[in-house]
Formats: sequence, C-alpha cells, structure tokens
Amino acid sequence: MSTFKQEPHKLLVIPGPIEVTDEVLYANAYPPVAHTSAEFIPVFGDSIRLTREVLYSKDAQIFIIAGSGTLGWDQIAANLVEAGDSVLVLNSGYFGDSFTECLRAYGAHVDEVRADFGHAVTQAQLEKALSAKKYKLVAFTHVDTSTAVLSDAKMIGETVKRVISDAVCAAASEEIRMDAWNLDVVMTASQKGLGAPPGLSILAASRKAIAVFEKRTSPVAGFYASWKKWIPIMNAYEAGKPMYFATPPVNLVRAYRQSLLEITGGPVSLEERFALHREAAERVKAAATKLGLKMVPASPSVAANGMSAIYLPDGVGVADIVPRMAARGVVVTGGLHKDTKDKYFRIGHMGTTVVNKQRGDIDKVIAVLTDVVNEVKHKQNA
Amino acid sequence: MSTFKQEPHKLLVIPGPIEVTDEVLYANAYPPVAHTSAEFIPVFGDSIRLTREVLYSKDAQIFIIAGSGTLGWDQIAANLVEAGDSVLVLNSGYFGDSFTECLRAYGAHVDEVRADFGHAVTQAQLEKALSAKKYKLVAFTHVDTSTAVLSDAKMIGETVKRVISDAVCAAASEEIRMDAWNLDVVMTASQKGLGAPPGLSILAASRKAIAVFEKRTSPVAGFYASWKKWIPIMNAYEAGKPMYFATPPVNLVRAYRQSLLEITGGPVSLEERFALHREAAERVKAAATKLGLKMVPASPSVAANGMSAIYLPDGVGVADIVPRMAARGVVVTGGLHKDTKDKYFRIGHMGTTVVNKQRGDIDKVIAVLTDVVNEVKHKQNA
Repeated sequence: MSTFKQEPHKLLVIPGPIEVTDEVLYANAYPPVAHTSAEFIPVFGDSIRLTREVLYSKDAQIFIIAGSGTLGWDQIAANLVEAGDSVLVLNSGYFGDSFTECLRAYGAHVDEVRADFGHAVTQAQLEKALSAKKYKLVAFTHVDTSTAVLSDAKMIGETVKRVISDAVCAAASEEIRMDAWNLDVVMTASQKGLGAPPGLSILAASRKAIAVFEKRTSPVAGFYASWKKWIPIMNAYEAGKPMYFATPPVNLVRAYRQSLLEITGGPVSLEERFALHREAAERVKAAATKLGLKMVPASPSVAANGMSAIYLPDGVGVADIVPRMAARGVVVTGGLHKDTKDKYFRIGHMGTTVVNKQRGDIDKVIAVLTDVVNEVKHKQNA
Repeated sequence: MSTFKQEPHKLLVIPGPIEVTDEVLYANAYPPVAHTSAEFIPVFGDSIRLTREVLYSKDAQIFIIAGSGTLGWDQIAANLVEAGDSVLVLNSGYFGDSFTECLRAYGAHVDEVRADFGHAVTQAQLEKALSAKKYKLVAFTHVDTSTAVLSDAKMIGETVKRVISDAVCAAASEEIRMDAWNLDVVMTASQKGLGAPPGLSILAASRKAIAVFEKRTSPVAGFYASWKKWIPIMNAYEAGKPMYFATPPVNLVRAYRQSLLEITGGPVSLEERFALHREAAERVKAAATKLGLKMVPASPSVAANGMSAIYLPDGVGVADIVPRMAARGVVVTGGLHKDTKDKYFRIGHMGTTVVNKQRGDIDKVIAVLTDVVNEVKHKQNA
C-alpha cells in the first residue's frame, strides 16, 4: 500500500463527483498499462464481477465503457428500443426529461407520467398508465439528482416486471437489488455512490434484457454504444482474455476497481453502507430542519439518502449560500431544475464521506451549513 | 510542483496508451472537483484552446467528451451524415474497416478505396474515385495503428477539400495542420501522441463542418454524441461559464490539460516535437533493419513516425518476441489486422518517450529489441 496522500482541498459534497479515497486516486495515477496486458485483464475482470456484486445480481451482463453517465441512456435507447416502440418514463425531475429526450432521439414513442416537483410517481399512477397501454419498457430515475427525489425501485419492479432504472446517483448509496426487484437494466456512473472519479458509464442488463436485445429485428442504432460490440469484449475480459473494440480507460478502470474492492471487501458490509447513508441523510436533514429549512422531496418516503435538496430561506439566493460555504471549505451546489433552480441548493452525502466517519465530513458539512445560514439570516435582520 | 513520482513499471511502448509524465499522472490524481466550479472551468477552457493550438486551427469547434477514440467515429456519423449520404473511406487497415462499419451503422452509403496491406491510398486512386462519384465526405485514417501506415493528410486535404481525418494515433506525433491542409474534422483521443491516460474522445470540426452540421434536415442520430448538445457546453466553458449536459471526467480533463501545457509550453516547440518523433522512428526502424527485419509500411514515405509495425523474422511468432521483451521491461504488442496479425509486431514511440531523451526510452527499446531478436535467432540456429 502506498503512502500517497491527496492534495488538501475543499470538501466536495455535491451529488457527484464526490470525495474519493487516497487509494482510489492513487490507482488513477498508476502508470498506464496496455489494455490487452496480463496486468490489466484481471483489473477489468474484477470490475465486472464486483459491479454485479454491488447490484445484487447473479448473472447480469455488465458494461463498463468510457463515457459520462449520460451514455447509459444511449446504450438503452440504441440497443433495447426499435423505432416505434412504446416506452413509459416515470419522470421525477430534470433527468426524467433528458431520458425521455434521449429515447425519442432513437425513435421511441415515449409517454410520461410526470410527478409534481418534489414528488415521485406513485403506484396508483403507474398502474393506471400500465392499464391504459402496453409498453415495451418502463424507465425511471432512482434518485433524480435535480430534486433528491427517491423513487421506490422495489415497488416499480414488482409492479412492472420489465424495468429500466437510471441509478446514476443511487448505486451503492441506495439499496438496489437488481434480481430480487425485477430490475432489467440498471445504469449508473463511476463518480457518485460508486466512489471513483467521473468518466465511466456503468450498466447492468439482466438476461431477460439481453434476450430482448438479441431478438431485435432492426440493426442497433449506433456503433460506440452497441452491445453487439461490447458483449464479446466484456465476456472476454471476464474470462481472462483480452479483446479489442475500443481502448478502455485503463486508469479509471483501475480506480473504479479499487473503489469496488473497498465497497465490497472493506470492514463495512453493503447493508451497513446503505444504513450509513441513511444515517448521514437523517443528520443533514435534521440539521437543516433545525435551521428552519424545508426539503424539496415532499416527504421522507421519497427522499434520497445519498443527497439532499434543500429550499433556501425566504429572500435568500443560491449566491448567498453556496459561495459562503465554499469559502469555509465545503463545496455544495445550486438547484438543477428549469423552473425552480434558484429556489434550492443541493448537498451530496455519499461514499467515503459517510462511510469513513473518522473523516468528520458530515460534522463539517452541518457546522458550516449552520454557520452560513445563521450568518445570512443575521444579515437579513440587521 | 509536486514531487510525485509514478510507480516503477515496465516501459509502455505500444501505439497507445503510452508513457506519460509524472505531472500528468499527478493531475489525474488531483482530488475530484465540481464540474461547474470556478476551479474546473479554466481547466476545461484551457484544454479546448490548447487542442486548437496543437492542431494549428484558428477557430475549429473543439469537442472533449468522456469516451474512447471510437466515439469520434460516432460523433462524425451521427452529426455529419444523413441517411443515404455518400461517403468515401480511404482504407489503409483495421481502423478503416471500423470507420466504414460505423458510418454504415448510421445509414451512410460508403464506398471504399482500399490500399493493399502496408500501403496508403495514392493521389491517383483518390482522384479516380472522386471523378466517378460525388461524395459528401471523404474520410481517412492518418496513422492506421494496425499497420503503422501514414496517409498523406496534406495531399488528401488539398485534393478533396472536405476531409475527415481520424488522427487518433497521429495528433501531436505527426504534423497536422488542420486549417492549412483543408481538414474539416480531425478526431483523436487522449492516450497517444497527446500524452494523457485514455478516456477522452477529442474532436475538432472546422467552421465549414459545423455549417454542414447546422444545415442537416434530419435530426441528429443519437443523444450522447450530439453536437447540438455539446456545442453550447464547449462554448460556455471556453467563455468561462459552466453549463451542464453530462458530467465531464474532471480528473482526465485535468491530466489532458497538463499534457497540453507540456506540449505547447515546454522547452520543445511543436515543430521540434514532430522532428523528435521522426528521429525516434528512424532510430527504431534502422535498428530493426540492421537486425534483418522488414517494415509493414511498404516504403518510408508511408511510414508513421509515432509507431512502427515490424514483420517477425521467418519462423518466429509474436509469442517469441513480445513476452521476451516484456520480461526485459519493454511492453510492445502484436499485430492488429485480421489477415496478418500473427506475422508482425508493433512498437509505439510517442510523447514523453521520444521528447524527453534523458529518459533513455528509445535506447532501451532498441537494446532490448536487439537482444531478444538475437536470442531468438540463436535458438533457431541451435
């Protein structure tokens, strides 16, 4: 183990990228290796196997591809949608809008069930939509990072059976049981709950989803996102053999593997990790509530555990809070939702920040938030 | 400047990824920052401006997107091709085949001028193809990494006027003058001549190419690769403002910026850098020739300067050479061309390996190659 220590820096508590461990960053600084080398093959193979483990899947096909999380939508649309297919999107915010736009770009007929701001789509709304029309796919955003709204993945999976979950923010911070909950596709990215730097699109497809893909009659609508290209690559690396389609981002994959090893092999089990995220979320929300602030998610049952979206006090803008917190060493961010983005701000509490309590990150977030809100209120009253 | 030193490792001299400097790796290990922060915006902005500088372009639209080099083909096909458009591909190897396949996946009618193995398409072949049919685009691979064949980008640009160059391997190792040579699109990736780890698709499009894009009548065939999405993002960051479409890979962008700063601001000018690549190529090829080995490129005029593809001695396989060189600390790689991949091997000589002579990398490559070939010949004769 190296003695590498990352540069002193402000605490990064946005809904991704997040704080990562010294070991993850050091892996990212490991000298590049040949993507076909005996040294790299097990790094990639482990990453595939451990991704499955984190998502509680026995046999999902895993894709780990250089790209932003957004590329996951293209993977789904290019591989699982054929022009004219009907798709239902359960829209709980900004990312629902984008998911819909992406599906339409690939020729899907998309219907949306739109939740009100701060709400998730309910089972009753979902059942009504399903009874009105037959859909090839139902897609939802597990944690819509724009609002911190958590959708009930288990309920949706049990109600629908064939479900696509955009879990970019949720993976490894919210409980996701891919097989048990009938989730057919889970897509995520490296820089949120999974604890690595950004740059990897990570996607898991069930055998049922792969069967749907294999039965398509029209060609895949794309090249870089084509599972026809990637399935042989992923299977080869998992089996310990190199194969070439596109050069994998070897440094990022090593960093991602390191984070997965910490998540699955550290002193904290996955279940305990989810509990620690719930605990951190409760602490942050309790502190904000104590300051008189309200949450964007309409009730605790639809509130994410990996992040919080918090309404600003009356008469206070994002520019009053975010730069003041940054000046005290804590980086949070403003809203991200076209109608209301100036009315709230967002704090991420994921990964090492919540799991390694000795870092004191959550204490610091709460202390700085309290100071800044009190200062701003004091100024208002002055 | 930090005192970070990368881990001792075998010398990586494949046609990418390549050796990178300590400073580039250290940038990759900088703690993740918020993609919308005042700290990150100039990092991204510099990367855009310096990419233009390296390609000798005044005003090209630059795209720096999380992805493998392969994503560049999708960018071109999704944004510049409309179903039924005719495209001419000048095919000089494996990457020509893939480029064609990608273009066809997006509905292009592709004709190919196929060079023989080890050859580039000639001006006469090109002129004949152009006189027979009108093409919207002409595409070629500047250095086909499968064969080390260098195409004459300047000649092609002057002959055609509207040209797309896949310069994944070539950028910053071969001379590329985008504006002067009438190259309308140059696509590359971070891990070759540009000297950063893999994971960034880098593309430059001329104003003429952007005008073609803007005149398209059908929607862009994709979402993640859509320039409609990325142009506002790139323009915003270059102007010093954040904007969100997909989370940029902040660590990789920082590493890429560091490498560009070294390339454009170091003691070695760009012209000197190209000369050093030519010099290193001559040394490696001369050493191989002295050992009785032949080059895959049919003549020096079509031989790349950033890499060499060298035929194996008679009766010798890739497995006789590559592992023996690796055991002596030098990582080279086998062939990559379906018909002939077992008959040759490839050595990369790009970036810091050729520019920072005090590293002694090329001396080491030549010494180890000489030892291993002599040893294998000796065994054959024994």
